[in-house]
Amino acid sequence: MEIVLGIDIGGTSTKLGLVRADGQLFAQRTVNTGVCQNEHAFFALLFQEIEIFITTYKGNATWVGIGIGAPSCNEKAGTLERAANFPFSESVPILKLFEAHFGLPVYLLKDGNAATVGEWRYGAAQGMQNFMLITLGTGIGGGIVANGQLIKGANGWAGEFGHLTIEKGGRKCGCGRLGCLETYASATGLRLTALNMLEKEETGSSLRFIPKEVLSSKDVYHAAEAGDQVALAVFERVGAMLGTALSNLSVIFDPEAIFLAGGLAAAGDILFKPLRHSFEASLLSQLSGKISVLPSALRLNEAAILGAASLVWNNKTLITTS
Amino acid sequence: MEIVLGIDIGGTSTKLGLVRADGQLFAQRTVNTGVCQNEHAFFALLFQEIEIFITTYKGNATWVGIGIGAPSCNEKAGTLERAANFPFSESVPILKLFEAHFGLPVYLLKDGNAATVGEWRYGAAQGMQNFMLITLGTGIGGGIVANGQLIKGANGWAGEFGHLTIEKGGRKCGCGRLGCLETYASATGLRLTALNMLEKEETGSSLRFIPKEVLSSKDVYHAAEAGDQVALAVFERVGAMLGTALSNLSVIFDPEAIFLAGGLAAAGDILFKPLRHSFEASLLSQLSGKISVLPSALRLNEAAILGAASLVWNNKTLITTS
Repeated sequence: MEIVLGIDIGGTSTKLGLVRADGQLFAQRTVNTGVCQNEHAFFALLFQEIEIFITTYKGNATWVGIGIGAPSCNEKAGTLERAANFPFSESVPILKLFEAHFGLPVYLLKDGNAATVGEWRYGAAQGMQNFMLITLGTGIGGGIVANGQLIKGANGWAGEFGHLTIEKGGRKCGCGRLGCLETYASATGLRLTALNMLEKEETGSSLRFIPKEVLSSKDVYHAAEAGDQVALAVFERVGAMLGTALSNLSVIFDPEAIFLAGGLAAAGDILFKPLRHSFEASLLSQLSGKISVLPSALRLNEAAILGAASLVWNNKTLITTS
Repeated sequence: MEIVLGIDIGGTSTKLGLVRADGQLFAQRTVNTGVCQNEHAFFALLFQEIEIFITTYKGNATWVGIGIGAPSCNEKAGTLERAANFPFSESVPILKLFEAHFGLPVYLLKDGNAATVGEWRYGAAQGMQNFMLITLGTGIGGGIVANGQLIKGANGWAGEFGHLTIEKGGRKCGCGRLGCLETYASATGLRLTALNMLEKEETGSSLRFIPKEVLSSKDVYHAAEAGDQVALAVFERVGAMLGTALSNLSVIFDPEAIFLAGGLAAAGDILFKPLRHSFEASLLSQLSGKISVLPSALRLNEAAILGAASLVWNNKTLITTS
């Protein structure tokens, strides 16, 4: 049997998974990479952990390659570039580092693209030719499949949904610009909206008992689930903003479906109900009723691991991703 | 020698062109289709004019097919659907009508896609794998090439740039929604902006001598060219809005270049200077300096005729469009 190592690289933690050719993820491990001071320490730790992981779980299988999903990566150059949440230099040649260390074929995908390919191969987007996947986590990322192909763009930046400007002169984003979608509709953005609403309005809310500093998007979700009016209003606002943004993207791509992945997408109807309402209300009439907005069928980390790993199988068997 | 008939269908006028395999457009004719009361009259007139045109110019060449660029068309179904500026029923089976009448292979493309393919094959986008073309005419349309393929979308609506919402609660659009890009940055939108500015401001302007009812976007252009401050301010405003919209699209597609075609694009620096300024100012820093915003190298009608016609050659020779 042959196996592939799929990796979902993150600033705080990096997830490893061993995947069979049929897409079964049979072993996982999380490496706490947040403790590393620089790229040398980061990769030394990661490589060591990978070796232990492989030795522990490989058994009789043949390890045939590595697929990596990573933020801020340049897929063509095989580098991580200006990676915001990593203690790294401007450009890190991650592909070469892995190839040199392990002597195996290595494939690199932007994390949003890795999750998109995972959803396409093994999740709810199977068989689709045109869809988008948007990851709602600390930030917002995603990927696009059009004409049955993953769209990469000239420099590998296609699908940077988080940096769509949705509010002129709006909230300051980590990218230096104002009003980006991820300052409103990520977990971080939802938390900010909650803090703003708690400050501006006087409605009673269980969220007022949580110190502002530690209030999280999960707290807002749990309060909304329990019927808290302010928390529900926060989700209504975030859902409405996302719905409008997705309807705007739809006139450009005309997708069959839009998938939402990541922490916020797990909020279910609390998010999807206002989102779908504003989506349909602002959609071009010709597209009305034709585009489904759905939660991902996979867990985000698993989708990215599976998608990255699938590149190795893809290349081995020369099957296209369409 | 073999020749193809390329057609650019419009509500007011329809353009015909005869094209050789090398892309040379050697004969053109404009048919005034605006006088027709319904689809029967429209196609009876058009077919008659096509026959006269072909007979006049064909010579010894063999006529091998027809390529049609048309607004509001469903490329998969081969129909015109809810075509806003035509006296047509809900759905007109244009592909079947042409095939039945002429007994030749017929190919149908959305007009924006036809212009995009024309630019790609014969214009400034030759050899590119990732670009967008946006047509700035009475309305706004366009097309997208990504991964070396024309992106069509699930229902053939991809690339409807004119209906990007750029102003919440903004101008009423023909599509029934508010704040669409084409209500601001088309020739029609530019004219409206001029009328608004003339009304709101008291600055002297040569445009004040033109009756409002007949003031056109061309008048605004000529005034701007002559240094009229109000006319220049109109182009500044429209250019800035376009620049912001294009920078927003760039984080989604990461194109090599964005081409502007159609009447307004011919305004040159008067439009492109403020446009490029606002484009670069609002672009994600990772993309800074990497995306050219350029005028089309072809005349709009010719691009659409050439692009539509090229589908016939494409299919005959099995050369892909990449």
